[in-house]
Amino acid sequence: MSDQLPPKSAAQITADVLASFEGCSDARLRELLRALVSHLHALVTETRLTQDEWARAIATLTATGQITDDHRQEFILWSDALGISMLVDALANTVPAGATESTVLGPFYVPDAPLRQWGASIAEEGGAGVPALVHGRVLSLDGSPVAGAELDVWQNGADRLYAVQRPEAPEDHLRGRFRTDDDGSYAFVAVRPVPYPIPYDGPVGSMLELAGRHPWRPAHIHLIVRAEGFRTLTTHIFDADSEYLGSDAVFAVKPSLLRTFLEHGSGEPGAPEGVTGDWVSVQSDLVLTPAP
Amino acid sequence: MSDQLPPKSAAQITADVLASFEGCSDARLRELLRALVSHLHALVTETRLTQDEWARAIATLTATGQITDDHRQEFILWSDALGISMLVDALANTVPAGATESTVLGPFYVPDAPLRQWGASIAEEGGAGVPALVHGRVLSLDGSPVAGAELDVWQNGADRLYAVQRPEAPEDHLRGRFRTDDDGSYAFVAVRPVPYPIPYDGPVGSMLELAGRHPWRPAHIHLIVRAEGFRTLTTHIFDADSEYLGSDAVFAVKPSLLRTFLEHGSGEPGAPEGVTGDWVSVQSDLVLTPAP
Repeated sequence: MSDQLPPKSAAQITADVLASFEGCSDARLRELLRALVSHLHALVTETRLTQDEWARAIATLTATGQITDDHRQEFILWSDALGISMLVDALANTVPAGATESTVLGPFYVPDAPLRQWGASIAEEGGAGVPALVHGRVLSLDGSPVAGAELDVWQNGADRLYAVQRPEAPEDHLRGRFRTDDDGSYAFVAVRPVPYPIPYDGPVGSMLELAGRHPWRPAHIHLIVRAEGFRTLTTHIFDADSEYLGSDAVFAVKPSLLRTFLEHGSGEPGAPEGVTGDWVSVQSDLVLTPAP
Repeated sequence: MSDQLPPKSAAQITADVLASFEGCSDARLRELLRALVSHLHALVTETRLTQDEWARAIATLTATGQITDDHRQEFILWSDALGISMLVDALANTVPAGATESTVLGPFYVPDAPLRQWGASIAEEGGAGVPALVHGRVLSLDGSPVAGAELDVWQNGADRLYAVQRPEAPEDHLRGRFRTDDDGSYAFVAVRPVPYPIPYDGPVGSMLELAGRHPWRPAHIHLIVRAEGFRTLTTHIFDADSEYLGSDAVFAVKPSLLRTFLEHGSGEPGAPEGVTGDWVSVQSDLVLTPAP
């Protein structure tokens, strides 16, 4: 009687699933599927996940699918909030000593920002924030200047929002592309960035609340630096005086990316063109890694 | 200069994410989130997941969300096809020696099937398949009969489909509830089940194809057995002569659940009422585990 056979153990189920991928002819896919199954099964087994908890996990994934659309990517938000995006970045983008480190792209990047003049402002609306002169040089590892490098920059305004989050904002508000001069120097006028929360009205927000975590990111300006012969660098300039540097909701802070924003009074020499009130300035050299 | 600090290692990112859950006041949630992060980070680190592979994973999850609706649950299908549903079942439903084992509920169960007479048929359309007399007793561990137990049964027809997959089918076709007699016996007339593929036109189907796996399940009849004083049992009767017993797409086969369907010729005594052609019969006693 087959009734006499021993019940199938949890370990045997895992072994059966792993064996099911034996016929996979793509060696890398086989490796990834087996690693996925090994870790998910170990997660279930070690925690002795209950059927109710499994049902809640399915409901959370389903809700994540429902809130995701062309303007919102809650699966990437999970990846960010669980530190997976930063981990993938860290594994892909190890840099030699002295090169500028990378960090997350984030969900607010929009390609094809307008090419602007050296030193121009990216603010296309008044009241976007305290003017911030951002300047420095793009360098290679040996300290030589990289002329003609492209900086693609974007940031949020004093209202915490990126232009892409505000349908009424000018499309190119608070973003732009700049080229370095022959000495590798760049400059543009931004606004002082402020901390902002990641979207917290969905499943990721529920997790953060239940876990006792906040949704805030420290103040930063995004940059992508592209130059021929160098690896493209996706990074931030973090305000070294910002709140939340020690608890970024997406774990993207690297100490090497902190920069001090210097405060300047009204009328102080060196103010960007047209700026009459208080302003700030921040200097950051960007050292590129050679292309492989 | 903060530029001099060492870059953050992959291990440090994982440690930072784990530490972020220190403030979680729900100890079980904290345990689950930390185990989730530990295993997902180990998966990424061990496989050195690339940014392209990460992007494909995000796209697969997004497609899973898009195909999921009130009639289709692709996240549960992933859980089934990766053996997670069976693993959760195995951990939740260990049974004492001699008790009938459980297996997956599957996506085709619909509550509130009609209560039918002892021995009645669940087929409400002609041509549903070869008539199958299903009979046996519901017993407790000491072999005593369980009177008044409820069997909630459902199955696919010879066309491979469950009624819930066919909008034109009578709502109660191939499903019903039955009660055991005073001697614990039950009987109903089903049709001989046939193998069928799980839905394979979505992301799970793509994975199966790329992995060299087929989507088929071996032939089975679903049962839920409910009786006061006993743990509710969700199980299958598998046809011991079916194809795919060794490669069920959802890993739900347990040897103790195989039963031989006996074949009977036209006119053989014991044929179910109204059956004039060939028929089959299968006997299965169902032994319940006491409620905790």
